[in-house]
Amino acid sequence: MSITPLLEQLIEALRCQPGVGPRSASRIAFHLLERDRHKALHLAEILRQAVERLGHCEQCRNFSETPLCSICSDPRRQSDLLCVVENPAQLAAMDHAIHFRGRYHVLMGRLSPLDGIGPEELGMDRLEQRLREGEIKEMVLAISPSVEGEVTAHYISEMAHPFGVRVTRLAQGVPMGGELESLDSGTLTRAFELRREY
Amino acid sequence: MSITPLLEQLIEALRCQPGVGPRSASRIAFHLLERDRHKALHLAEILRQAVERLGHCEQCRNFSETPLCSICSDPRRQSDLLCVVENPAQLAAMDHAIHFRGRYHVLMGRLSPLDGIGPEELGMDRLEQRLREGEIKEMVLAISPSVEGEVTAHYISEMAHPFGVRVTRLAQGVPMGGELESLDSGTLTRAFELRREY
Repeated sequence: MSITPLLEQLIEALRCQPGVGPRSASRIAFHLLERDRHKALHLAEILRQAVERLGHCEQCRNFSETPLCSICSDPRRQSDLLCVVENPAQLAAMDHAIHFRGRYHVLMGRLSPLDGIGPEELGMDRLEQRLREGEIKEMVLAISPSVEGEVTAHYISEMAHPFGVRVTRLAQGVPMGGELESLDSGTLTRAFELRREY
Repeated sequence: MSITPLLEQLIEALRCQPGVGPRSASRIAFHLLERDRHKALHLAEILRQAVERLGHCEQCRNFSETPLCSICSDPRRQSDLLCVVENPAQLAAMDHAIHFRGRYHVLMGRLSPLDGIGPEELGMDRLEQRLREGEIKEMVLAISPSVEGEVTAHYISEMAHPFGVRVTRLAQGVPMGGELESLDSGTLTRAFELRREY
């Protein structure tokens, strides 16, 4: 054995991270042990705290250290405008990019029956309950336009129908600053179909 | 604030890993919290243990949980054949690829005065002491053929000269600019067999 068991365990454990294969894991392990033990210890501590203390907001399902997250408990947020996002990263991107002052529902995934992800796993019952409460006037679907995303968006819009809520979704087309030649044909086709008067 | 402080701290802490930028860090954090809390907790624990318990072997400088590593304390290893490698990943690659039954010296870097890495940082004093002890008959330099690697190899061969030790290096089967740890074992084996006088 040329590597100590503990080092092998560390390299193996680092691979729980998506995008980290055996080679990256070795590189990370050697770097942390050789150059950055202080930060490695900090990472270990924060990771433990996060796993132990971060739960989900009872209302919107976003990660939260408290039963109700900071957005859901903020009285200045509009209660009649709800944005449905797939995950906390999208929520952060939305909240950072636009002056959205409504609230959120975080799906934490997309409908994918083959992977065992059904309406229950995405908190659809909780979302339906919020619609039933009657405060929401508009629901914006900020869901990536993949096949599973389309199915998820369709499911939600059908669910919202009986409640007379206005359901909208993010516009699709050419991204700002995007080079036309580097866009995929799906995006170009969609942008052409949805072309507007100049 | 759309993300909890603890989650932000976790994303920031994950970035201590080389090759992990802000986007990967978010993806990793969400993945671990949403799908793999058990493994995340395991990683935190192993990382803490590794930082606290993994030191360096007194003799070869490789990572070790004990004062003397498993290779240096193995009596079946030849004491007259020493392989000098840059890091533990290269040591593991060498030991895995070829039937090398000697011992190692792990530099943990290359000579790079601009980065403040001099002979002392690479344990050259320890290496010189081992040469002085007189047991070593041959020293194989398994150092990547970069500019800094060449300088390092030259330094070591000069240092070994007074002791009458045979200094060899891996054959020119190693591609220029290639990192040893990314080579296939066949190439490494061949390079070892064809090692030449320095």
